[in-house]
Amino acid sequence: MKKIEHIGIAVKSLQDSNEMYTKLFGKQPYKTEAVASEAVNTSFFEMGDSKIELLEATKEDSPIAKFLEKRGEGIHHIAYAVDDIKAEINRLKSEGFTILNETPKKGADNKWVVFLHPKTTGGVLIELCQDID
Amino acid sequence: MKKIEHIGIAVKSLQDSNEMYTKLFGKQPYKTEAVASEAVNTSFFEMGDSKIELLEATKEDSPIAKFLEKRGEGIHHIAYAVDDIKAEINRLKSEGFTILNETPKKGADNKWVVFLHPKTTGGVLIELCQDID
Repeated sequence: MKKIEHIGIAVKSLQDSNEMYTKLFGKQPYKTEAVASEAVNTSFFEMGDSKIELLEATKEDSPIAKFLEKRGEGIHHIAYAVDDIKAEINRLKSEGFTILNETPKKGADNKWVVFLHPKTTGGVLIELCQDID
Repeated sequence: MKKIEHIGIAVKSLQDSNEMYTKLFGKQPYKTEAVASEAVNTSFFEMGDSKIELLEATKEDSPIAKFLEKRGEGIHHIAYAVDDIKAEINRLKSEGFTILNETPKKGADNKWVVFLHPKTTGGVLIELCQDID
């Protein structure tokens, strides 16, 4: 793992939160993107060599909708950038971590992504992501 | 705000979590530090131009102990690096954000720090920090 690629934050309204973060950071999101496979609308703010990703649910039974119902708005996951996602999956499995999806799936922002189960990572949902060439 | 300075993660046992993160990242914390004013023991892992800060409570009634009791282990706050913390406090107050401590206090890792109330930041406890010269 080489850096924090982004922090994912669950929000009720992408429009309201985009306005709040624009005030907080003093700049606007550099893009918005709908990710149908995850049932989310997302927006991204640059922050140093990382990003803040805001996540709004588009379906009632989606993971983000369930998170919002259970916990309210807040930090949903931390994503770390890796160069070789398959090698990292194998390394982390051998260290005892539980991978939620062993076959990387296409995430937002042109990445291959996998998630680690929070039960093996101290309550933190961790995403690994690799740029799609 | 110029970058994610660190992500603070509340843990039950610093020793156990240092071991888990050493496996996760493939490297050890570069330092540990006790911060008496916040009643925490901390450890820091470098990650790109940011850090992961693990926080273990040293007193039963401390903020981290209360967080652990209420939410369990997990992400506690996001800290953003700023050049001029007093100017940022004034800017954010004028934008409607609630500052928890308007006079910066000394935090871990040789920083002046202030916190923004999660009620005005979409459920996220946000820290601003400036290097102490």
